[in-house]
Amino acid sequence: MASVDEPPERHCWVCFATEREDRVAEWVSPCRCKGCTKWIHQACLQRWLDEKQKGNGGGSVSCPQCGTEYRIVFPKMGLVVYFLQQVDRALSRVSPFAAAGVVVGTVYWSAVTYGAVTVMQVVGHKKGLDVMERADPLFLLMGLPTIPVLLVLGKMVRWEDYLVRLWQRHSSKLQMLVPGIGRPLPRVPGDAGYGGDHISVSRTLCGALVFPSIASLVGRLLFHRVSSSLQRTVLGGIAFVLIKGVLKVYFKQQQYLIQANRHILNYPERENPSEDAADDDDSGND
Amino acid sequence: MASVDEPPERHCWVCFATEREDRVAEWVSPCRCKGCTKWIHQACLQRWLDEKQKGNGGGSVSCPQCGTEYRIVFPKMGLVVYFLQQVDRALSRVSPFAAAGVVVGTVYWSAVTYGAVTVMQVVGHKKGLDVMERADPLFLLMGLPTIPVLLVLGKMVRWEDYLVRLWQRHSSKLQMLVPGIGRPLPRVPGDAGYGGDHISVSRTLCGALVFPSIASLVGRLLFHRVSSSLQRTVLGGIAFVLIKGVLKVYFKQQQYLIQANRHILNYPERENPSEDAADDDDSGND
Repeated sequence: MASVDEPPERHCWVCFATEREDRVAEWVSPCRCKGCTKWIHQACLQRWLDEKQKGNGGGSVSCPQCGTEYRIVFPKMGLVVYFLQQVDRALSRVSPFAAAGVVVGTVYWSAVTYGAVTVMQVVGHKKGLDVMERADPLFLLMGLPTIPVLLVLGKMVRWEDYLVRLWQRHSSKLQMLVPGIGRPLPRVPGDAGYGGDHISVSRTLCGALVFPSIASLVGRLLFHRVSSSLQRTVLGGIAFVLIKGVLKVYFKQQQYLIQANRHILNYPERENPSEDAADDDDSGND
Repeated sequence: MASVDEPPERHCWVCFATEREDRVAEWVSPCRCKGCTKWIHQACLQRWLDEKQKGNGGGSVSCPQCGTEYRIVFPKMGLVVYFLQQVDRALSRVSPFAAAGVVVGTVYWSAVTYGAVTVMQVVGHKKGLDVMERADPLFLLMGLPTIPVLLVLGKMVRWEDYLVRLWQRHSSKLQMLVPGIGRPLPRVPGDAGYGGDHISVSRTLCGALVFPSIASLVGRLLFHRVSSSLQRTVLGGIAFVLIKGVLKVYFKQQQYLIQANRHILNYPERENPSEDAADDDDSGND
C-alpha cells in the first residue's frame, strides 16, 4: 500500500503551466474532475468564465468535462446597490408591457381622431363639432373609436362573394327555368381558380377607412339636391356599395366563366405526325 | 418497312381510360412527351391544372415529365371585365403602400398629440394652449411631433455608461494620485460581465415618453417656490437626470466591482482527499 502524502504536480488545464513555473498564482479545483483536468488557475478560470458568460454576468456555468456547476461567490452587495438592482429589474420587467401600452394608446388615439373626423365628414363640419361638444365625453371616448372598428368589420362581410357562389350553385336551375340565360359550362373551375380570392388585410383596412370619404363624394355627385349632409352621405354610401357590389359580382362571374372555358392546346407537332413516327420506327429498325 | 397509319391506341395518363372505354371524351397531347404519357383527356388535364394552380388561376404550368409549358387559351374577355381587372390589380398593388401610410399617419398623429400634451404639461395648461393657438399651424404640425423624437434620441445618449468607462479606464491613475481611493482590483471583468448593458427598445421608448411627466413631478416636489411652470419643469428635469445619472454610475461601478471580486470555490471534497486517492489506488490494484 503506497501512502501518497504529496499530490502529483498540478498543471492548469487552460494555460498548461505547472506549479513550478508560476509559484504565486492561485490554484482552484472547482469540480469533480480528477487527474490532469483537476486543477486550474483561478485567473485562467475567471477568464474562461467571462468568455462563457458573455453578456450574462450572473449565469451559472458548469465544467465541460464532469458537468459540475462551478460555485462562484460574489462580495456582499450593499443595501443601496441591492435596492438599485431591484429597481432596475422591475423596470426591465415592466417596460415591454408599458411599450405595448404605448402602441395600444397610439392606435386608440388615432381611432378616436378618425371617428371624430368621420362624424364631421358625415354630418357636416359645424354640426359635427356641435354634436360632439354636447355629447358625454366618456361616450365620445368609447363611441368614436368604434367607428373605424365597425367600418373594418363591415368591410370584412364579403356579401358579393356569397352572391357569386349562390349564383353559381343555382345557375343550372336558372338555365332550366329561363332558357337561353347561359349555355352549360364545359367544366366547373377549382374553388380558387378564378381570381385571387384571398382576403388582403391592407386592402380591407384601407377600403374601410376610405369608405366615408367615398360615400361623401358619391353623395355630393349623385344626390346634390339632398340638403342634409347626413342623408346625402348615407345615400352616397349605399349607392357606392350597390354599384361596387354589382360590378364585383359581374367581374367574379366573368372570371369564373373565363376559367370554366379555358382550353389546353395540343403541342404543335410537325406536318405529319403519323409519318414522322413511322420514320422514327424505321431508323430504329435499321 | 412498316407503314403506321393508325397511331397506337391512346390512353389517358391520369384516369388510365383508353379510347375504346370513352369514345366521347376530348383528347389532348399538350407536350413533347411520346409513348404512354403523350395523351390525356382534356377534362383530366383541367382537373390536374386546378390542383397545380391552387389559388393562382393565371399561373403557368409545365409537364412534370418533359417540362413543356402547357399552352392554355382563355376566351376573350370583354372591355368592361378587362377594365375591372386592371382596377382590381391597381388596388391590390397600391393597398400595401396605403396601409403603410395609415400606420405612419397613426404614429405621426399620436406624436403630434403627445407633443401638444407635453407643451401644455411643461409651460402650463392654459399658457400652452395660448402659445399653440398663436403659433403657425404648419410649424405646429412639424414641431410638435419632433418633441417625442428628440426625447427618444436624447434617451439614447448613454452618458452614464461613458462616465463609468472613463472612471474604469482611469481608476489606476486615480489610485496613484489619491492614495486610498480604492484597492487594486484582482481582475478586470469581461466587457459585458457586469450587468446587462444591452439597449432595450421598449425601455428607451417608455423612459423617453414618461420623462416630461417625471420632470414636471420632480420640479413640483423640489422647486415648488419657482412660479414659472416652464422653469420649474426644466429644473425638475435637470435634477432628475443628474440624480438618476449619479445613481446609475454608482450602480454600474458597484456591479463592476462585484464582478471583479468574484471568486470560484474549490469543489467540496471528503475529509482527506489524499488518503481517499490512495484507497482508490489500492482497490484498483487488488
